Amino acid sequence: MEFQKINDQLLSEFKAIVGDEFVYTNREVLEQNSRDYTEDLRFYPDVVVRPSNAEEISLLLKICNQARVPVTPRGAGTGLSGGALPVFGGLVIATDRFNKIIKIDERNLQAIVEPGVINQVFQNAVMEKGLFYPPDPASRGSCFLGGNLAESAGGPKAVKYGVTKDYVLNCEVVLPTGEIIWTGANVLKNSTGYNLTQLLIGSEGTLGIITKIVFKLLPLPTENLLMLVPFFSAEKACEAVSAIFRAGLTPSGLEFMERDCLVYVMKHVDVKIPLKDEINAHLLIEVDGNDRDVLFKECEKISEILYQYECDEVLFADTAQQKADLWRARRSAGEAVKSHSIYKEEDTVVPRAELAVLLKGVKAIGAKYGFRSVCYGHAGDGNLHVNIIKEEISDEDWNTKVPLGIREIFELCVSLGGTISGEHGIGYVQKGYMDIAFNKTQMDLMKGIKDLFDPNGILNPGKIFL
Amino acid sequence: MEFQKINDQLLSEFKAIVGDEFVYTNREVLEQNSRDYTEDLRFYPDVVVRPSNAEEISLLLKICNQARVPVTPRGAGTGLSGGALPVFGGLVIATDRFNKIIKIDERNLQAIVEPGVINQVFQNAVMEKGLFYPPDPASRGSCFLGGNLAESAGGPKAVKYGVTKDYVLNCEVVLPTGEIIWTGANVLKNSTGYNLTQLLIGSEGTLGIITKIVFKLLPLPTENLLMLVPFFSAEKACEAVSAIFRAGLTPSGLEFMERDCLVYVMKHVDVKIPLKDEINAHLLIEVDGNDRDVLFKECEKISEILYQYECDEVLFADTAQQKADLWRARRSAGEAVKSHSIYKEEDTVVPRAELAVLLKGVKAIGAKYGFRSVCYGHAGDGNLHVNIIKEEISDEDWNTKVPLGIREIFELCVSLGGTISGEHGIGYVQKGYMDIAFNKTQMDLMKGIKDLFDPNGILNPGKIFL
Repeated sequence: MEFQKINDQLLSEFKAIVGDEFVYTNREVLEQNSRDYTEDLRFYPDVVVRPSNAEEISLLLKICNQARVPVTPRGAGTGLSGGALPVFGGLVIATDRFNKIIKIDERNLQAIVEPGVINQVFQNAVMEKGLFYPPDPASRGSCFLGGNLAESAGGPKAVKYGVTKDYVLNCEVVLPTGEIIWTGANVLKNSTGYNLTQLLIGSEGTLGIITKIVFKLLPLPTENLLMLVPFFSAEKACEAVSAIFRAGLTPSGLEFMERDCLVYVMKHVDVKIPLKDEINAHLLIEVDGNDRDVLFKECEKISEILYQYECDEVLFADTAQQKADLWRARRSAGEAVKSHSIYKEEDTVVPRAELAVLLKGVKAIGAKYGFRSVCYGHAGDGNLHVNIIKEEISDEDWNTKVPLGIREIFELCVSLGGTISGEHGIGYVQKGYMDIAFNKTQMDLMKGIKDLFDPNGILNPGKIFL
Repeated sequence: MEFQKINDQLLSEFKAIVGDEFVYTNREVLEQNSRDYTEDLRFYPDVVVRPSNAEEISLLLKICNQARVPVTPRGAGTGLSGGALPVFGGLVIATDRFNKIIKIDERNLQAIVEPGVINQVFQNAVMEKGLFYPPDPASRGSCFLGGNLAESAGGPKAVKYGVTKDYVLNCEVVLPTGEIIWTGANVLKNSTGYNLTQLLIGSEGTLGIITKIVFKLLPLPTENLLMLVPFFSAEKACEAVSAIFRAGLTPSGLEFMERDCLVYVMKHVDVKIPLKDEINAHLLIEVDGNDRDVLFKECEKISEILYQYECDEVLFADTAQQKADLWRARRSAGEAVKSHSIYKEEDTVVPRAELAVLLKGVKAIGAKYGFRSVCYGHAGDGNLHVNIIKEEISDEDWNTKVPLGIREIFELCVSLGGTISGEHGIGYVQKGYMDIAFNKTQMDLMKGIKDLFDPNGILNPGKIFL
């Protein structure tokens, strides 16, 4: 693919479309748009624009498509796979001005939202009306809903309520060639043609730029209980997870944290959690619903199961503050590890009963290739975030030997029925591993879809595909 | 598209692949495969084969793709949009020998199943292990799971538990060109490449033939309560539906039946339901869970809401037999109407709070075009099955005037945020209305996807696209 640089002519066309004050070429803005939360990567765009509506994006894409200028859509830049990085330079289309909650439709339990709305802002807005939007990645305080769609983000609630893709009924999308379409209809079931909505979700900004989202909402559960469960053995903690579901229970959160994860968290944020020397992992378990007594009974049943897997004393969060602290601890795990060392985060996912095998395998592979990992994640979904810590590893080993270990971890995932990303996406950093999950026929179909939507390959190039 | 007839050479190749005894050219088998449950349509295939594994299907498709022979995959033939009709003749690939439940994985709450397994057989098999597969179309006693995937079938439980697409984690698919692929992985969340799984589901056998399915399962709820609610006004019944959800309640079934529906049902099956002269519609409402007391409280809350919409006395199903009778009544609605008259069934769907507007519109459009309709459906999903009754309408009006009314009904759906099929698919009979739901850009994308998967257009031609 031969891309063109943005010349003065194009720059003035951009300005004519979005207004001079929303076109940026200064170093500071370019730097801000050169990175996301993925490792320590930097790719500078040539120009950043901040349009405010789909029509402006349509005009921008038409021009860039014709001129073969690479375009990278960007949400809040909280991604963990480099999806928002302009790896070929060119134009970044920032979506932060798409920040309106257009309508919360209480009659239909639906909402129409722009993609630049922050996840938690939206959650709070619907909560005020007694409604519930469950997907809440760790970055919910800053990440945009558009980015959540791009990666089909999950979060702790996914175990009971599903991920982003399960809440999107319809979206307005600007195609790379500039046409504006809706992908479906505002309905709970739809057997009308191919499912373009689900094709767009998780496509990481490579097939179109989402400009409006229609979400379904749920009634807000009124009660929840939270418990923190220490385990002497991390593998036993993993084994306990699937036993809970096998007993007919569906927690609304079921998180796993290795000992080191909690150690780093307590250095990073002001949360105190008792941590005995012999404890090697925790499960954080939430149940929710509308009847407190029922939830207490569920917690009792869960506790009985947990003790069979040799846990230490279960700690119930008694107050709202305790609950908030425990969730804050879990949510800051990624940042805490990052603040400790340069790291690579792998978003492994397997059928949940294989979690213990995966964890054991990750440690063995680490020993073989000489790296240490800190693991935590959405155990109820079989989704384990494996954080490989650089620490004293040489740059050479980090760049050549560690990737071989990562490859082996992903091969283990696939051999267990799993895959290489559960909720972070492939983006820039995992595309070299796609051959583990998919053969040539599968990749050719995906590439064919990409070519169909984006014949000139201008939209978010360098992602998903090698 | 120029298709070729099946000659003797091809016929003997088919026999070599699947065995002589599974290749049929006799009138009786061709006749059986010429129809499904859609109206009174007949299209005869030239040959029917009954392969038993994906490799045989792969060889058949390679040959047919090369020879440009149209191929129509067929499940149980219970479809309501003509998706299994071989409208260009050619080869029908019947999937009834794909009837194995390969594995019920209790550790992971998953199952691996072949597409020729009957929905209810599968439901019962997982139920015996305390597990739950919710999607259950009215035809669950005979329909195949493969067909359920093809149309993303729903059923009464969809209102709480979602439709078929929400339970498929992964599938093995034979592409029209003969390659065999898996679409995803056996995991609850997956952000690895484009969502080929969801692209296949609901594609009505036009993109590939599904040969294995990996389902996720839920713990089986242990309790349920069922009530039948008579309304003096059908529109008020519709209005009550969204009020229930707005009050924070999520029934596990919320069905609507017009008076005439119940009248025909009681003529057709041996169920007695009291039906006062002044009653014009019923809601059938189920709640489920694990705690009977909680369910009784939910029913009380629901009843309070219902009385605000002027219902008559709520009838609780006290026994398992009563529950079974009420569900049998609802499930036989389609057949009951069919036994009354030739009819056309439209699978309209709108945001649920628009249901009353839709119903009123359907009646007004019927009056304008001179047809009567019997309506029932999954009101909780906003999914109304509109059965247009032929009765005394002339063939000419039936074929020319009634379709204009149908077009107007679909236009109404789309104007309300809905679409033209909720769970039956487009298939053969609704493809002429696709322009109401989608413009040229959207249709071109879908057609492009079709061409990518099926460059010679041999697989299930004459469906979805005009």
